[in-house]
Amino acid sequence: MKAKTPSESRTTLTDLVLPSETNPLNNLFGGELLARMDRAASIAARRHSRRVTVTASVNHVAFNRAIPLGSVVTVEAAVSRAFKSSMEIYIDVWTEDRESGIKTKANEAIYTFVAVDETGRPVEVPELIPETELEKQRFEAALRRKQLSLVLAGKMKPQEATELKAIFQ
Amino acid sequence: MKAKTPSESRTTLTDLVLPSETNPLNNLFGGELLARMDRAASIAARRHSRRVTVTASVNHVAFNRAIPLGSVVTVEAAVSRAFKSSMEIYIDVWTEDRESGIKTKANEAIYTFVAVDETGRPVEVPELIPETELEKQRFEAALRRKQLSLVLAGKMKPQEATELKAIFQ
Amino acid sequence: MKAKTPSESRTTLTDLVLPSETNPLNNLFGGELLARMDRAASIAARRHSRRVTVTASVNHVAFNRAIPLGSVVTVEAAVSRAFKSSMEIYIDVWTEDRESGIKTKANEAIYTFVAVDETGRPVEVPELIPETELEKQRFEAALRRKQLSLVLAGKMKPQEATELKAIFQ
Amino acid sequence: MKAKTPSESRTTLTDLVLPSETNPLNNLFGGELLARMDRAASIAARRHSRRVTVTASVNHVAFNRAIPLGSVVTVEAAVSRAFKSSMEIYIDVWTEDRESGIKTKANEAIYTFVAVDETGRPVEVPELIPETELEKQRFEAALRRKQLSLVLAGKMKPQEATELKAIFQ
Amino acid sequence: MKAKTPSESRTTLTDLVLPSETNPLNNLFGGELLARMDRAASIAARRHSRRVTVTASVNHVAFNRAIPLGSVVTVEAAVSRAFKSSMEIYIDVWTEDRESGIKTKANEAIYTFVAVDETGRPVEVPELIPETELEKQRFEAALRRKQLSLVLAGKMKPQEATELKAIFQ
Amino acid sequence: MKAKTPSESRTTLTDLVLPSETNPLNNLFGGELLARMDRAASIAARRHSRRVTVTASVNHVAFNRAIPLGSVVTVEAAVSRAFKSSMEIYIDVWTEDRESGIKTKANEAIYTFVAVDETGRPVEVPELIPETELEKQRFEAALRRKQLSLVLAGKMKPQEATELKAIFQ
Repeated sequence: MKAKTPSESRTTLTDLVLPSETNPLNNLFGGELLARMDRAASIAARRHSRRVTVTASVNHVAFNRAIPLGSVVTVEAAVSRAFKSSMEIYIDVWTEDRESGIKTKANEAIYTFVAVDETGRPVEVPELIPETELEKQRFEAALRRKQLSLVLAGKMKPQEATELKAIFQ
Repeated sequence: MKAKTPSESRTTLTDLVLPSETNPLNNLFGGELLARMDRAASIAARRHSRRVTVTASVNHVAFNRAIPLGSVVTVEAAVSRAFKSSMEIYIDVWTEDRESGIKTKANEAIYTFVAVDETGRPVEVPELIPETELEKQRFEAALRRKQLSLVLAGKMKPQEATELKAIFQ
Repeated sequence: MKAKTPSESRTTLTDLVLPSETNPLNNLFGGELLARMDRAASIAARRHSRRVTVTASVNHVAFNRAIPLGSVVTVEAAVSRAFKSSMEIYIDVWTEDRESGIKTKANEAIYTFVAVDETGRPVEVPELIPETELEKQRFEAALRRKQLSLVLAGKMKPQEATELKAIFQ
Repeated sequence: MKAKTPSESRTTLTDLVLPSETNPLNNLFGGELLARMDRAASIAARRHSRRVTVTASVNHVAFNRAIPLGSVVTVEAAVSRAFKSSMEIYIDVWTEDRESGIKTKANEAIYTFVAVDETGRPVEVPELIPETELEKQRFEAALRRKQLSLVLAGKMKPQEATELKAIFQ
Repeated sequence: MKAKTPSESRTTLTDLVLPSETNPLNNLFGGELLARMDRAASIAARRHSRRVTVTASVNHVAFNRAIPLGSVVTVEAAVSRAFKSSMEIYIDVWTEDRESGIKTKANEAIYTFVAVDETGRPVEVPELIPETELEKQRFEAALRRKQLSLVLAGKMKPQEATELKAIFQ
Repeated sequence: MKAKTPSESRTTLTDLVLPSETNPLNNLFGGELLARMDRAASIAARRHSRRVTVTASVNHVAFNRAIPLGSVVTVEAAVSRAFKSSMEIYIDVWTEDRESGIKTKANEAIYTFVAVDETGRPVEVPELIPETELEKQRFEAALRRKQLSLVLAGKMKPQEATELKAIFQ
């Protein structure tokens, strides 16, 4: 299976914040943004694996900035590391000011998807080869996040999470 | 007002075909695709003008190809020509095959938007300077389409639509 | 196959503008109106042909008038001309003032639908016989529109579009 | 205030059954049909009163017939009797067979709306004058229904509901 | 078939009023509340019968109180009486004040569902045994409501509706 | 400010999986479940604080089990620990088998909400006093999760996260 770069899976979803997606304060619902990121991430996972993909988990997501009704929101998703049959997808969310055109980072999120065959069984995916500096950083950090995820799920002993453990010493 | 290029307004909306957007044959509703293209085009118009923009018209749109549930659809919109306060937006729609990754052109459409101020009055927009060969072709053709549109609306006499008339001789 | 009149396919869809269909200015989204007209037109095409019908194209649509949230909108669609397996549908859109009850024309649009069998292959449809003066005008103009559509799609040479060519001379 | 006839408020909402409105058996959700009838009835009430109107109650509605995905459904609503500030709206629901074109009655429902001013206070509405035989029957029965409604709400003693009481003797 | 109590089918649906569910006055649409109650009631019917269930009818529903955008609404549904294959579901709707936390009754409604097998044919359901005082009152009243429903549908002569007739004498 | 127990904020949202919420495999979209959990959690946060609340973050969420169209899903949310102005909400998701009635745990998720005043500034919330054994465990673990969240956001040095550090030694 031929390895791929993040740019081969990069997916851009630029869209408006619609009235049906806003909360009583007229800002984009946290839950709706999670749903939009899930769709963009699933397309990135599909582009990397050329397989049916299903959401396996969502990492920690912080909502730092309210996004008002009528905003233009750009969700950009790309595979940040591939494991055996799972892929970590890194998602950047931007809003842009209508008058100045200046883009502001609104959110970051990390989802994990698994590639499956028609019976739902996990299948192997191509390796990922990061290219830019940022892609390399995210690639490295993905391993620590995987360990953390396994520890939190009780599937790995904290003492065995070598990379993760290192940052607490 | 500084002139802009098409790439400055180019807007990409890649998303899945969701079950609530399909017709009884499980294909994307024509009407839903029109709505999606309208949102992408309005963002492109806003990026070019940095103003509130409203849909003025939709040119002829042909639906050549059914787009099934679960497809990945990419709608790409960019300003193709700017007039005094109106902008022609050219929209390309692509679907991609999950297994091969091959992209297929599914539709083209042309919308016109007008930039307005807070009271809804038309305001001037920057000029457009096409760069690529394709952008230049679309820029040229936009004038004939505008004449056609004025003729169909009874606002220009067919005999005065010089560029348009030429193609029938 | 017995010919039919426009009144046999006439379809009326009167409904409110709902909050989920409005843009940031609290007016009906252009895209949503296109979707609503598509549904009404598809019912008219089905009533004329008694077949499964799919959207083939949308002609030029002008949005002359903003339609605010809570408005009552009436979409009226009827077949304006039948060709071999395609039908042109003429759509009139009205809003009405709540206090005076006065109806105002908000839009006109023309869609083309094709009747298909279960395998998606085009099938023949009944002829259309216009009755009123307006129906007859629309019936005549439909032929010029079809030629224009073929010319724009590069499927007919401009010089052969006899009826269309005439209006430029 | 000038009296009106049912035909002055008659409202027709013909639309498709969309995928997002169906239950797991692929039939129109009972709840969605209730919502659609509510919108058509509110337009009829508004046409009669030329006022803001709010749903006051829904009478007994029976669902006799499943309506499958992709069906054409016609909801027809008209005022059947006007009281001081409330209006009874009678709603007929039809589906039609695509191949034969035959219309079948799918449901009947009766909603009550109240006309209100900007502060939400009930205001007087015009009288209703039934014209056809069916309109006259519905007009007569409306009084018994109003008594039944008052009895069920504990606002009228059963013994005082003269018209209603009569049918049990 | 083992008899069940109302608490075995009790279903709680607490949710926000979303922007896409509100009317032009920013209150929950009557029709949307009917749809939400339908979903809660269908779950209660399914919990009692362990079968596929379909809406058979909606009894009289009064809308006494506007429910504004952003409210927390609790819909509570439970089987109030079981007949041969049909079940009456009693629904209570509450809103709560954000600051004081006080709950207010907003609506009551009664739906009837029928349990069916895979071919859509009615199947028998377990008996219902009411426990609390309120459950017993609702159980008793359900019989009168069933008679009323049969009388209104012309399936029972008023004179034979013994329990119902009694309240008019 | 009087301390509260988890049971005072517990929120139950039992609802069906609707067609418009499913992915191409006819299972509930990961993103839709995230949105539903967000609504239930925001109601729990509001019940605890009696304030306007906004989503601050979503902790790690694992999707272990596909939830098919038509399923009954119960989302149960309650405050698991209160800090100065933020609250951790623990969410349990269950599905139930229609025939046997057996409930199965489908997901767990942890969201953080912040209570704000009308100007969006954080305000203090009541303390939380856990009662059951499970509530006490979740209360304890919440502190470690908060430290982890601060470490991941770069707002706390790993060496200062005393409780968190302990589990790696």
